[in-house]
Amino acid sequence: MGVVIPLEEKTKAAGVEKLVSLVDGDMGRVNQTILSRTGSEVAMIPEVANHLISSGGKRLRPMLTLATAALCSYRGDGHIKLAAAVEFMHTATLLHDDVVDESDMRRGKLAARMLWGNEASVLVGDFLLGQAFKMMVEVGSLAALDILSSAATVIAEGEVMQLAAAKDTTTTEDAYLAVIRAKTAALFAAACEVGPVLANRSKADQAACESYGANLGIAFQLIDDALDYGGTSAALGKNVGDDFREGKITLPVVLSFRRGSESERDFWRRTLEKGEIRDGDLETALGIMRKHRALEDTIERARHYGAMARDALEIFENSAAKSALLETVDFCISRAH
Amino acid sequence: MGVVIPLEEKTKAAGVEKLVSLVDGDMGRVNQTILSRTGSEVAMIPEVANHLISSGGKRLRPMLTLATAALCSYRGDGHIKLAAAVEFMHTATLLHDDVVDESDMRRGKLAARMLWGNEASVLVGDFLLGQAFKMMVEVGSLAALDILSSAATVIAEGEVMQLAAAKDTTTTEDAYLAVIRAKTAALFAAACEVGPVLANRSKADQAACESYGANLGIAFQLIDDALDYGGTSAALGKNVGDDFREGKITLPVVLSFRRGSESERDFWRRTLEKGEIRDGDLETALGIMRKHRALEDTIERARHYGAMARDALEIFENSAAKSALLETVDFCISRAH
Repeated sequence: MGVVIPLEEKTKAAGVEKLVSLVDGDMGRVNQTILSRTGSEVAMIPEVANHLISSGGKRLRPMLTLATAALCSYRGDGHIKLAAAVEFMHTATLLHDDVVDESDMRRGKLAARMLWGNEASVLVGDFLLGQAFKMMVEVGSLAALDILSSAATVIAEGEVMQLAAAKDTTTTEDAYLAVIRAKTAALFAAACEVGPVLANRSKADQAACESYGANLGIAFQLIDDALDYGGTSAALGKNVGDDFREGKITLPVVLSFRRGSESERDFWRRTLEKGEIRDGDLETALGIMRKHRALEDTIERARHYGAMARDALEIFENSAAKSALLETVDFCISRAH
Repeated sequence: MGVVIPLEEKTKAAGVEKLVSLVDGDMGRVNQTILSRTGSEVAMIPEVANHLISSGGKRLRPMLTLATAALCSYRGDGHIKLAAAVEFMHTATLLHDDVVDESDMRRGKLAARMLWGNEASVLVGDFLLGQAFKMMVEVGSLAALDILSSAATVIAEGEVMQLAAAKDTTTTEDAYLAVIRAKTAALFAAACEVGPVLANRSKADQAACESYGANLGIAFQLIDDALDYGGTSAALGKNVGDDFREGKITLPVVLSFRRGSESERDFWRRTLEKGEIRDGDLETALGIMRKHRALEDTIERARHYGAMARDALEIFENSAAKSALLETVDFCISRAH
């Protein structure tokens, strides 16, 4: 049986063919698990959950769990439920994020909160988080539970950190990195670390997979940040300039602000701190970014973390899994072009 | 070292003296754990968490975990972290509830969302949930993890159920009971069940404690519902009629609606379904409830579940713990007078 992937997904999978084909059979079981675990007699739960889950996310995180399990020659069943748990944690975060950001759109569809209200987004997120933990408990690995529950805490910490730093144009690159390490990279790292943990591999192998995941996650987020100013609406599933309109401080802004003139800084303060956005401001923002090569350098920074991710994996013997994981790094970075 | 309880807490503890004195030493350690586990370098997290945690909740749920552990002669340390985890799960639910209900007040103070925004309430709730799971993992009992993670899912399901049934005046008593079994009683049941589980007691003892907790939880919620129409602002830490103003369908309304005349039903539809509340409507609601003995019978129903809770414990030998747990049932019910 093949993987159940909606049509738009097939296009998005371009660039990670090795990964998709490596985890093909397992991913079918993960999708089955995801489907059955969103089931509830309370009808609103599968409605809201499936709205988001079936809307064609890449399911990159659960694929990473499956691929690192394969990399470590894991022979059990636990990776299926852990991969589903990872996707549920991610989906719960998206649901809660939409409430926090007051987003209208998610993955090219109306955000769940626009259709069912903030209440449902908060509560269905909580339900998915509960189900994620239930699945981890069923797998029975305390080490994996430790990794994933720690990640849940760190992710929430990262989101609060972002909230506290919100609209602060003087945010340093380091402070911004701390936010995305927590809010994005922690789940990538955990998704990759549970593979070797299930397979009872050495601390060194666990650390290698964790490091691969963390650095891939940072690269992924930085490319996302660049795409928000440079991608096309169709490819992204969201509008160009969403971060700008929401007053989010991301690396392209951090670099532009620091490299900019005093009048440019006034522009960022007015638009992002005070939220006074006028017609043509997005174009001005893009012009300033071009002038300071902020998008190119954001991608360059992403390449640096991508290189770290690749090197982290080098201690493993060559294999189909390793080559798929390395290709995934290239994919994450090349999305920006 | 004594228990760290704020002043107003001492008054509220009246009626559960046996429980408080039984768990005195352990509760000091739980409070310490709670304090240290809300710590984070992200300053907003301890601020928001402690706003709620230090605002004088009864901490009834963690006391139940400690007391059932004592009932089962548990000799380890795991009950401390599980009790703290139970309180964190409860606090996370309160934070998310405030967002869902759009509440202004909680425990006589401004709700966290009024001070820090919905965003912080959602995210700090997520952080506490993450910390709760981390503590459970540290205790290392997969059985306890199973019980508490299942409860987390059921609680969220119950909240969504309540959302779906919201403002429906034709809700049956059974449907309402299903909501509070999930949203309130599940955590009471789990808090009580992990005690015997840690102590490796028989399935029968585990089931007894679970049943005690579930029925106590239902009784507790029903009394809360009655208090919302009959308590005083000072004793409750919230205003009389909050449920009425929020259009919540609770047992006093369910009974009044079913027993009422057509014009009374029109009144409930206008005020609770349509939310058209005018001056004097709360007094009218109280008058209708008095006429149909809705509050007395809500308390009578609570007494029934209280009796089930007491009987569930009867298989245990007499002990200080048992007598404290039985007294707690009386306390929960007598709050309404």
